[in-house]
Amino acid sequence: MVQYRRTDRVNRVAAAISDPTRRAILERLAQGPARISDVAQPFAMSLTGFCKHVRVLERARLVRRTRRGRENTLELSCEPLRQVAQWVLQYEPFWNARADRLQQFLVNQKEKPQ
Amino acid sequence: MVQYRRTDRVNRVAAAISDPTRRAILERLAQGPARISDVAQPFAMSLTGFCKHVRVLERARLVRRTRRGRENTLELSCEPLRQVAQWVLQYEPFWNARADRLQQFLVNQKEKPQ
Repeated sequence: MVQYRRTDRVNRVAAAISDPTRRAILERLAQGPARISDVAQPFAMSLTGFCKHVRVLERARLVRRTRRGRENTLELSCEPLRQVAQWVLQYEPFWNARADRLQQFLVNQKEKPQ
Repeated sequence: MVQYRRTDRVNRVAAAISDPTRRAILERLAQGPARISDVAQPFAMSLTGFCKHVRVLERARLVRRTRRGRENTLELSCEPLRQVAQWVLQYEPFWNARADRLQQFLVNQKEKPQ
């Protein structure tokens, strides 16, 4: 069950970050919490469209929304990214191996008599 | 333009790994290249359904397909995961900061006179 929940969370988080607008929202919130209208302002879309993206991020628990005064404030919540990082980093030895082979190839090319 | 292509690649790769079947295919191929029918065998789905997942992985360049004899062979290609890792790891200081704060809280609790 725990395994299932973790799988489900990786699904949601990976889907959430597969969109450039949603990644840009997270990048904005990395500077600190902000009012939803301020975060929305630079994006060339309706507030309704923007709020749909925010809801996807909330469901993935990457963003927390709190009401302060008359306005909603958004705050980054990075913890769920850790599990995606863990999954992706399993494969680091593979891409490093390729980089090592490429480097070795370049060294060999350099050492070859012209 | 380069920036756009990188963005586009992160989109595709993150969407590709947002599905547990596709992640399981990559995990299987981490053990080495394999015939498509052998990779498909443990999955409770039609070969057609399975091949749709493979195509998503191919479009994200996470899997290479080659024809050997009468059968297609699949091979892992991890390089595109590196860019997703780079994007996700920007946020590592945030989740580490939270873990540090939690640890400090627990230390403080322990040190408190009972």
